[in-house]
Amino acid sequence: MSIAQNTETDAKLRCISCGATPDSAGQDFRCTACGDLLEFFFPGWISGPDAFNPPALDPTALKSLWLSRRTSRDALDQSGVWRFRELLPHIPNPEEHVITLREGNTPLYHLPRCARATGVENLHAKHQGMNPTASFKDTGMTVAASSAHQGGFRWVACASTGNTSASMAAYAARGNMHSLVLIPEGKISWGKLSQSLDYGALTCQLRSDFDGCVRILNDLVRQKPVYLLNSVNPYRIEGQKTAAIELMEQLAWEPPDHIIVPGGNLGNSSAIGKALLEMRELKLISRLPKLSIIQAQGANPFYRSVREFGGKKLEPMTADTLATAIRIGNPASWKKALRVLQATGGEVEEVTEVEIAAAKAEIGADGIGCEPASAVTLAGLKKLRRSGFVKSGESVVLILTGHLLKDPDFTIKFHRGDLFDGTADEAEAAQVKYLQRTPVVLDANLGVVIAALDAAERDSGSDSRRAPSEPSDAKEKLNR
Amino acid sequence: MSIAQNTETDAKLRCISCGATPDSAGQDFRCTACGDLLEFFFPGWISGPDAFNPPALDPTALKSLWLSRRTSRDALDQSGVWRFRELLPHIPNPEEHVITLREGNTPLYHLPRCARATGVENLHAKHQGMNPTASFKDTGMTVAASSAHQGGFRWVACASTGNTSASMAAYAARGNMHSLVLIPEGKISWGKLSQSLDYGALTCQLRSDFDGCVRILNDLVRQKPVYLLNSVNPYRIEGQKTAAIELMEQLAWEPPDHIIVPGGNLGNSSAIGKALLEMRELKLISRLPKLSIIQAQGANPFYRSVREFGGKKLEPMTADTLATAIRIGNPASWKKALRVLQATGGEVEEVTEVEIAAAKAEIGADGIGCEPASAVTLAGLKKLRRSGFVKSGESVVLILTGHLLKDPDFTIKFHRGDLFDGTADEAEAAQVKYLQRTPVVLDANLGVVIAALDAAERDSGSDSRRAPSEPSDAKEKLNR
Repeated sequence: MSIAQNTETDAKLRCISCGATPDSAGQDFRCTACGDLLEFFFPGWISGPDAFNPPALDPTALKSLWLSRRTSRDALDQSGVWRFRELLPHIPNPEEHVITLREGNTPLYHLPRCARATGVENLHAKHQGMNPTASFKDTGMTVAASSAHQGGFRWVACASTGNTSASMAAYAARGNMHSLVLIPEGKISWGKLSQSLDYGALTCQLRSDFDGCVRILNDLVRQKPVYLLNSVNPYRIEGQKTAAIELMEQLAWEPPDHIIVPGGNLGNSSAIGKALLEMRELKLISRLPKLSIIQAQGANPFYRSVREFGGKKLEPMTADTLATAIRIGNPASWKKALRVLQATGGEVEEVTEVEIAAAKAEIGADGIGCEPASAVTLAGLKKLRRSGFVKSGESVVLILTGHLLKDPDFTIKFHRGDLFDGTADEAEAAQVKYLQRTPVVLDANLGVVIAALDAAERDSGSDSRRAPSEPSDAKEKLNR
Repeated sequence: MSIAQNTETDAKLRCISCGATPDSAGQDFRCTACGDLLEFFFPGWISGPDAFNPPALDPTALKSLWLSRRTSRDALDQSGVWRFRELLPHIPNPEEHVITLREGNTPLYHLPRCARATGVENLHAKHQGMNPTASFKDTGMTVAASSAHQGGFRWVACASTGNTSASMAAYAARGNMHSLVLIPEGKISWGKLSQSLDYGALTCQLRSDFDGCVRILNDLVRQKPVYLLNSVNPYRIEGQKTAAIELMEQLAWEPPDHIIVPGGNLGNSSAIGKALLEMRELKLISRLPKLSIIQAQGANPFYRSVREFGGKKLEPMTADTLATAIRIGNPASWKKALRVLQATGGEVEEVTEVEIAAAKAEIGADGIGCEPASAVTLAGLKKLRRSGFVKSGESVVLILTGHLLKDPDFTIKFHRGDLFDGTADEAEAAQVKYLQRTPVVLDANLGVVIAALDAAERDSGSDSRRAPSEPSDAKEKLNR
């Protein structure tokens, strides 16, 4: 079975390396000529100055069409992805095939305390963790799962222990399809799996490592009618573009100076960059923000590729970071990401484990909860400020990719003070102890509670951010 | 310090028992005459046939005003709570005092498989777990926290180990206020607390039980300028009303026949019922849905109050249920809930622990993840169908109150098959084993994976819901 190209739209597939433009994709979504990744392009948009910008894609008309859909009761219009369907591959008979959980529509928050701390007053966070399964994966999954449904597939599959499997399982269930999750035996994180179990995925632990799972999955989709939902699937990239479109709408189509994204498998960086380039192409925006990509130091193959090899090659590595969502040593979409980094003039950075944990606590103190991988954006911003790449008068948007509740253990350990116990990071971690809010144990006595309150109030001084971070001081005073 | 009544609006406070209408509330939000709860009412709406329905509250005008706000870039309009501010107590200088995380705006999902299973085709779920901190608490918290901010408070407080403290801590952080959480020592659930730690609450474990914490909190707010955010706060009830208003808008103002809510502290039931009554009063809807309230059998004081005592009294109990969000033995808002139950002609039901777990898995199989307490609604619907109270041709909306990720442990234990091990429910649990999706361990071999897939496909037959639930069968066949 092959995935048919839609004929009612001008979206075409193209290999990112050799430029081949196949009529349809194989089930592994790889170029049959050279084996590299495929992506969608829209030849109707770029066929020269005369044909450019056909009436249907008039930017002013598009903007008001998209806005007007916000008042619609149609499921497609209510989705923060399908609301922008003019820039997506067409799904024929959408009322039959589109599977939506009303994904997208995520908030853009000002971060006042983080702004003060970084000296960037115009600092916002686009929180993709507010999607239905609590990560940005949903925006791509709705498009790819709908493509699977339209193709008549009964089974969808991925190799993942985290956010992708959760999202896939939910959309498969909504679309009455079966879902298969392949994970390495013994490396199962029960917390991350609760969602795929709840949504009914068939979960197979293979006696192998992660790469072995991917290999078997690739073989499987070539032999059986199973639809591949790993990040090589170009439909997922298209759906993930909409985060950037929605962001520009929220900013009244005035692009910020900088957008900062976490870098793991690099599909999301690619998608957001692709959206920016396409929006400029279509004159929806007049200039490009700089798109910068931040990796964890323990999972930094892309950072090293750019810094050490000028993007000429990428050396896979064994990844190790507590920010599990970006613990990836061989990112599938690195060439796509490199292209958007260069096209937008963005920068690449790496941050330490402690820098990630501190940044996450600082975002939390602004009332916004995210998973560790999301916090690399703020940690990276601090470095980009120090290097002078981001200036104080510039506007910055951080892309937060997952909700705090995706990884509560990390948060609890950090505030309990044992996240870095016995690791090489212990000394560095001591320096961010002031961000911890360890619970204090007190006698059940009004006077004691009032004293704790007063102590916290005193300690906070003029910087209210620090007040709740020093309960241990309060405790000591009370126990004396 | 007392909480001043707004003078720019017609919202007034009234005691639910003695009817006293104080000009302002004390910091414990209790009637100074009789000690019972206060609620808001809007005398301008009900001052007789002539004065009724002033022009500003013309139902048609209101509906289009609310809809038009969906296209606004104003933070107040983007909130799914403040969008309906004509039906809320007024906050003066909202641009200064309103604290919003863009709460509300939650999706309404059709539940096709649950519909078939219950024989109610027109079955939907309003998912309040899609709020920013992943529970319905946010809709009330934005109003109450804004009231605290407007009152000039630096500290807010609650006694809670769960969703309320998470929501309070987030809104306090956004509003630059300090938050205090009182919890009983040793009964701390780290998972439920990760959010309040992340958002920076000062968390005090008291050497006492929960009631002891509430007692100290009440004393505290009478002595110190600390704003009480427990559910007795009537501003929270007003914010929670908006879930029902938004629901009616989603249904094009055609009320369903039934709305079913989980019953814990009964503030949410009261709020939704209050909204329904007010919407009928204002001619926004032409008839009332029946509002039914479902409790866990182990925490059923309201069920017993209605069934055994005709609502004449409520006997507090020691609550015990795995649905922790409704593990409440002495619900604060039972009188308010009783009133809306009677006014709408709803029913009260109780469900077992196994019925809750099964219902949660069934909702999950529809691609919708919720916490256990939310699933009592589907479990209750099954009982109401059997009793004939809900008929097959009728339309039903379940209110889901929290996200799956609020309690992943429950999900994992259920699917691993050890949620009820060694409990009195073990035999009953064996009957819903078919809903479990235990991961299977397989050799890393393409043939083995294909066999597992084929087995699941065969087992699923025509009922795709059951396919992923029998992997152990697949495993047995493969290991032979």
